[in-house]
Amino acid sequence: MHFGSDNWAGAHAKIAEAITRESALFSPAYGASDLDKKVAAKFSAVFEREVAVFFVGTGTAANALALASVNRPGGICFAHREAHMIEDECGAPEYLTGGGRLHGVDGPRGRMDIAKLQAAIDHFPADFVHGGQPMAVSITQASEAGTIYGLADVAAIAEIASRAGVPLHMDGARFANAMVSLNCTPAEMTWKAGVDIVSFGGTKNGCWMAEALVFMNPADAAQAPFVRKRAAHLFSKSRFIAAQFDAYFDNDLWLSMARHANAMASLLADVLKASDKARLAWEPQANEIFAFMNQAEAQRLQQAGAHFHEWHPPHPDSATVNEGEAMFRFVTSFATTAAEIDRFEALLATNTAA
Amino acid sequence: MHFGSDNWAGAHAKIAEAITRESALFSPAYGASDLDKKVAAKFSAVFEREVAVFFVGTGTAANALALASVNRPGGICFAHREAHMIEDECGAPEYLTGGGRLHGVDGPRGRMDIAKLQAAIDHFPADFVHGGQPMAVSITQASEAGTIYGLADVAAIAEIASRAGVPLHMDGARFANAMVSLNCTPAEMTWKAGVDIVSFGGTKNGCWMAEALVFMNPADAAQAPFVRKRAAHLFSKSRFIAAQFDAYFDNDLWLSMARHANAMASLLADVLKASDKARLAWEPQANEIFAFMNQAEAQRLQQAGAHFHEWHPPHPDSATVNEGEAMFRFVTSFATTAAEIDRFEALLATNTAA
Amino acid sequence: MHFGSDNWAGAHAKIAEAITRESALFSPAYGASDLDKKVAAKFSAVFEREVAVFFVGTGTAANALALASVNRPGGICFAHREAHMIEDECGAPEYLTGGGRLHGVDGPRGRMDIAKLQAAIDHFPADFVHGGQPMAVSITQASEAGTIYGLADVAAIAEIASRAGVPLHMDGARFANAMVSLNCTPAEMTWKAGVDIVSFGGTKNGCWMAEALVFMNPADAAQAPFVRKRAAHLFSKSRFIAAQFDAYFDNDLWLSMARHANAMASLLADVLKASDKARLAWEPQANEIFAFMNQAEAQRLQQAGAHFHEWHPPHPDSATVNEGEAMFRFVTSFATTAAEIDRFEALLATNTAA
Amino acid sequence: MHFGSDNWAGAHAKIAEAITRESALFSPAYGASDLDKKVAAKFSAVFEREVAVFFVGTGTAANALALASVNRPGGICFAHREAHMIEDECGAPEYLTGGGRLHGVDGPRGRMDIAKLQAAIDHFPADFVHGGQPMAVSITQASEAGTIYGLADVAAIAEIASRAGVPLHMDGARFANAMVSLNCTPAEMTWKAGVDIVSFGGTKNGCWMAEALVFMNPADAAQAPFVRKRAAHLFSKSRFIAAQFDAYFDNDLWLSMARHANAMASLLADVLKASDKARLAWEPQANEIFAFMNQAEAQRLQQAGAHFHEWHPPHPDSATVNEGEAMFRFVTSFATTAAEIDRFEALLATNTAA
Repeated sequence: MHFGSDNWAGAHAKIAEAITRESALFSPAYGASDLDKKVAAKFSAVFEREVAVFFVGTGTAANALALASVNRPGGICFAHREAHMIEDECGAPEYLTGGGRLHGVDGPRGRMDIAKLQAAIDHFPADFVHGGQPMAVSITQASEAGTIYGLADVAAIAEIASRAGVPLHMDGARFANAMVSLNCTPAEMTWKAGVDIVSFGGTKNGCWMAEALVFMNPADAAQAPFVRKRAAHLFSKSRFIAAQFDAYFDNDLWLSMARHANAMASLLADVLKASDKARLAWEPQANEIFAFMNQAEAQRLQQAGAHFHEWHPPHPDSATVNEGEAMFRFVTSFATTAAEIDRFEALLATNTAA
Repeated sequence: MHFGSDNWAGAHAKIAEAITRESALFSPAYGASDLDKKVAAKFSAVFEREVAVFFVGTGTAANALALASVNRPGGICFAHREAHMIEDECGAPEYLTGGGRLHGVDGPRGRMDIAKLQAAIDHFPADFVHGGQPMAVSITQASEAGTIYGLADVAAIAEIASRAGVPLHMDGARFANAMVSLNCTPAEMTWKAGVDIVSFGGTKNGCWMAEALVFMNPADAAQAPFVRKRAAHLFSKSRFIAAQFDAYFDNDLWLSMARHANAMASLLADVLKASDKARLAWEPQANEIFAFMNQAEAQRLQQAGAHFHEWHPPHPDSATVNEGEAMFRFVTSFATTAAEIDRFEALLATNTAA
Repeated sequence: MHFGSDNWAGAHAKIAEAITRESALFSPAYGASDLDKKVAAKFSAVFEREVAVFFVGTGTAANALALASVNRPGGICFAHREAHMIEDECGAPEYLTGGGRLHGVDGPRGRMDIAKLQAAIDHFPADFVHGGQPMAVSITQASEAGTIYGLADVAAIAEIASRAGVPLHMDGARFANAMVSLNCTPAEMTWKAGVDIVSFGGTKNGCWMAEALVFMNPADAAQAPFVRKRAAHLFSKSRFIAAQFDAYFDNDLWLSMARHANAMASLLADVLKASDKARLAWEPQANEIFAFMNQAEAQRLQQAGAHFHEWHPPHPDSATVNEGEAMFRFVTSFATTAAEIDRFEALLATNTAA
Repeated sequence: MHFGSDNWAGAHAKIAEAITRESALFSPAYGASDLDKKVAAKFSAVFEREVAVFFVGTGTAANALALASVNRPGGICFAHREAHMIEDECGAPEYLTGGGRLHGVDGPRGRMDIAKLQAAIDHFPADFVHGGQPMAVSITQASEAGTIYGLADVAAIAEIASRAGVPLHMDGARFANAMVSLNCTPAEMTWKAGVDIVSFGGTKNGCWMAEALVFMNPADAAQAPFVRKRAAHLFSKSRFIAAQFDAYFDNDLWLSMARHANAMASLLADVLKASDKARLAWEPQANEIFAFMNQAEAQRLQQAGAHFHEWHPPHPDSATVNEGEAMFRFVTSFATTAAEIDRFEALLATNTAA
C-alpha cells in the first residue's frame, strides 16, 4: 500500500528496458549523441513548436536553473507560498540564482490568488531600487495541493507576468498528471496559455531520473547550456536520460502512466470518502489526495503497512481541523495497483485499535 | 574503435541489471532506503573506516561541492593548471562556492610540481586580507594527462595542505584506474596518505551515472546534506545510484573493469609505439594515452572509423612537436575490446592517403 | 521643514571637523592607522567588553555582511516582515550570503511577535534537509515602525535564537535613538540581553558615512576581515570613518544627537496630536512618527514645503484607515530644529485648500 | 617622506571644504539630490558624451560591479596577471559576479601582451561549453607597475575584446595620473579607444572616498542601479561623494593633483637614478616608481623615516635581481612635497649603516 510518494515508485519496465538497451552502446557524450538529438526533436513535436530542451538531474535543478536563466539583480520570483521551490528545495533557487528571492503568494489549495499575485508584484515598482525587481512568476502544475490551474487561470497569470515584463515558469514535476486531468495538449497547457519556461518532470511519472528544462522560445535559451553546465547538471552519459524520455513518449507511455496514476487517486479518494474514518480536504484533481483523519487511526493504518504521511501545515483554507485530527497526503503513481487500494479499503474497514 | 572517451561507453551489464531490478521496487526516496544505507556502509568497508558518502549526479558536482563544503571568504583552491575543475567545468567550482578561486599550479604531465604548489600557497600569507586565503588543495588521480601521483607524492602534497591549514581533495573521476595501477587499497591512496575528501567516480568506469562525494572524516560532513540539496543534487530516486554502486563493488566488479581498461590502454600504447606513425608523449599509467601523430594521418584514421580526439594544448613539457604534428588522446574503458585494438593496429598499418 | 528622512540631514559640525582634520594627515591605509585602532578600542569601551569592529560603507552592508558571516547552506534568517533588510535592501542580504533567505515574521508595529517567531523557526526542523535551516534571527532596534523592543523582549528573542542554535543580530541603524529612549547602556541593549552581532549605525545620527559591524564575541569574527574585503567594503582611507566615530563618541555627542532627534519627534508628535488634521498611528518611541492624514491635506503641506512621505503599506495592525486617508512618516534628526516644528505647526493650523 | 602609497595621503583641502559645506545642508538621499545630478552631468561633460555614472565606495567595488554588470554564466574576465582585481581584491570580483573567473594574462611591466591576450581568449571557443566563456577584458590604467597603455595599445585590446564579443573595462584607480601622462582627454583614453566601462577613481588622487562606475554607453547601465544597491554600495548620503567629485573637477583640480603627483614621481626617480644605492626597474610613467635596492640599505632608509614597501613578486621581466637586493615601490601623490624628496635625497646620500 504505497501511497507515500510518487517518487517511492521505481521505474516503468519500458524505461528500464531503454536504459538497458543504451548500456550496450557507445555514443558521444554530453548530449551530442543521435539519441539526444532525436529526443530533443520529440520534445518539439510534443509541444507543437520548436522548443529548446536541457536535461537536468532533478526537478529542483530544473526549477532553480529556470530562474537562474532569467534572474536580474535584486530579482524576485513570485510563487505560491507552499510551492515546492519555497518549501522543499533547501534554498536551491536562491543559491543558484546567486541570491534571488522567492516571494510567497497566498491562495486557496495550492494555487495563487490572482489578485494577491498582482498586489504582490505591484509592491515592487520599477523605479524603486531599494525593493528589488520582479524577475519571474512560477506556477506549479499540478500544485503541491494536488489541484490544477485551469487553462484560463494560467492565461490570466501569464497576462500579469507579461504586464510586469517577466516570464512565466511552470513547475511541471507532475506535468503529465495535470495535463491528462485537463484533457488538453502540452501546447495548450503551456505556450498557448502564455507559459515561457517549463520544468518538465518524468521522474515522478515512471522514469528513474528524467527531468528537462524546456524553453518555449529557443531564443531565450542562448545562455542555458552554460547555466546548466555551470551548475554541474550536464551529464556525460546524457543519452541515458534521453533514452528514458524516448521510451516515455513512445506510444504515449507518459500519458498512460499519468492517466493510471490519476485513476488510482480517484479510486482511493472514493474509498476514503466512503469511509467514516476520513474526509477529503478537497477533491483531488491529479494523483494526490489530502484527507483529514484521526491521528490514532492514521497510525493504525501505517503500522498495518499503509504508506502515507502527515502533511504540514494544513492548508489554511482547509475545513476546520477537529481535535485529534491531522491532514494526511496520499499519492498514487504509475505503479499503484487497484489491489493495493482494495487492501487499503479492507484495512480501513477493520475496527480501530483505540 | 572507440577511443574517444571513457564516457562514450555505455554501462556494464551488471549495472544495467541492478537498475532494472530496482525499477520494480518501491522504496523510500531521497536516500532513506535500505539500499542507500547498505551502500553507504559498503563505502565505509571499501575505505576501511567510517566515511560519509553523498551521491551526486556528476563528477563536476562532486568536485564543486567538495570545495563548497570547505570554502572560506576569499578562498582559493590550488590545483594543476590543466585540472578538470579548471579546464572543463565551466566555472562550476567558482559558482557553487559562491566565488571561490581556482589557482592553477604548473607541473609536468598533469601533476603539480610540489615546490610550485608550496610557492603558490606562500603567495597568500594569512595576514594579508587583500590576497584572499587558501581553502583547499585538489589533486586529480589519475590526472588529466593519464598519469598518477605516487603515494609518496600524495603524502607530500597532503603535508603542504596540512601546514597551510586546508584540506586535501582528490578528484577521483578515474579513482579505480589509478588505484589498480598503483596496486594499492582505497585507504592507502586516500586517508592513509592524507586525503580528506574524495570525488569518487563510477561513471567513467562502467556505471551510467554514479558519483559520490566521500568525506574521510564524517565530522567534516555536517553541512554536506544541505550543501548537496541546495545544489539540486539530492536525487529523489537516490537508490538507483546506490544500486549502481552496489553492483559496482560486488565481486570487485569495479576493479575488474578498471584493470581491463588499463590493460587495453597498455595494449593500445604498444600498438602505437610499434608503429612509425605515432610516438607516445609519455608512458600511460592508467587508461589514457597521449601520442603525437601527423594531423593528416590522424584524420585518415578518424575517417576510417577510429574515434579519438586532438588534445589542446600539448602539455608544455612534452617532447617537441614536429611540424604537421599534433597531440592526440586515446581513452580505453571497461567496454574496450582487444578486437577493436587489433582493428586499429591493422588500420594504422595500411598506407597513408597522402 | 525636513521630516523626510534622517538621511536627508547632513553631518554634525564636529563630524565635519574631524574629517577636515584628518584630511591634512598621512596615515596607514586599510584600517592600520593609529586612529583606526584607537576607535576600535573606543567601541570596546562603549560596549564594556572586548568587541570586534569592522567599518563598512552602508547599513545595508553591515546587515548583509553580518548574515554572510553566519550563514549556512540553505540558511534562513528570521526578521520582521517589514524589516529594512527585507523591504529596502534590494536583496543584498540574499546576494551577499550567496543565496540565504529572509523569512518574514509578522508582529504589530514593526516588532516580531514572539510566538510567531518561534513557530516560524519550528517550521524548519534540523533533520528535514528539504526545508533548509535557520541561520540567524535579526531584530531592528529602533524598528522600521519607530518602535522599540524592550530589553525583556530582546532577551526573549535571544532565548529563542539560542535554542535554535543561531545568533541574534541587531540592525542598529537607529541604535542610538533606541538606546536613549530605553535609557539603557549599549551593553544592556546588546550582549547583556543576548545579542551577538550589531549593525551599528552612525550615518542616520549625524555622521556622513559611518557604519560598523560589531561582533560582541571577537571569536565569531575570525573570518570577518575577509567577509568585508570580499564585499568591497574595506576602505583604503578607513581612518576617515574612524575619525567620524571618534568625534561621534567624544563627549557623548552621539547620545546628545539621538536625544535631540527623539525630543524633536516628541514635539512634532504633540503638534500632530493637537491638530484635528492628523492622528498618530501609534506613539513614537524614537525619532520616527507615523500618522494618518487626509491625502489632500498632506499634499497641501508638502506643497507648502514640508518634507515627509507616504508610507506603504500601512502597518496591518494600525487603526482602520478612513477613506481618503493614508499613512505618512515623519522623521527627525540631530539637525531638526524646534523652529521647523513651529513652522509646521503654523502651517498645519492654516485652512486646508480643499 | 611618505612614499608608501597614494592612499596614505589624506584629502585635498578643497575636497574637505566641499564635505564641510555639504554637512550643513538637507538634501534628498540615495543620489536624488540636485548635487548628485549636477555631478552626473559633469561626468558627461568630462567624457564629452552622455555617460551613466554610479558612485560606489571603493575601487574594488567599481571593478567588481563593472564585471557583475556584464558577467555571463561560466564567464571569464581577462586581465593582467598582476592586476589589482587579481592580486588585491580578496576575490571580490569572483564573489560579486557570483562565481566569475579572472584569467591572468602575462605581459611585461604590468601590461598584457596583446598576442597572449588573444591566445588566452582563443582558449575558450564559443561552442565549447565545458570551458566557460569570455565575459570581459580589463586593463589597468595606469597599471600596477606604474606603466601606461598607449592609446594605440588600448585600441588594439579593444579590437580583440570586440571581436570576442565582450566589453572592455578600464580599472582607472589612477585614471588621472595616466591621462595627464598621456596628455590626452578622458574621451581619448576611453570610448574613443574602445573602452566600454570605467572604474573612475578619485580616492588615490586627493579625495577621501570618491569612486565611480562609469558606463560609456548608458544603455549598458540599465541594471546598474540594482547591481550597485544589491551590493550595498548605494550610499544614503550619496551627495557627499558627489560633493567630492564636484570639487575634484572644479578648476581642473583633479588634473593639477595628478600632474603634481607625476612630477613628484619624476623628481624622486631622478634622485634614485642619481644615487648609486638604487636602480630603477623601469622608467616610471605615472606616480609609481619601482626600484631595486639592497635590502639592508632599504631598511636603513625606512628606519630613518622613509615610507615605502618591498614589492612582491619582482616583475618577471625586470632586470636580474642581484643577491641581497629586492624590488621596492615608491608612490607619490597630490600631497607629496619637493621638500620630502629633498630630505629623502639627503638621507640616501648619507653612509649606509653596513
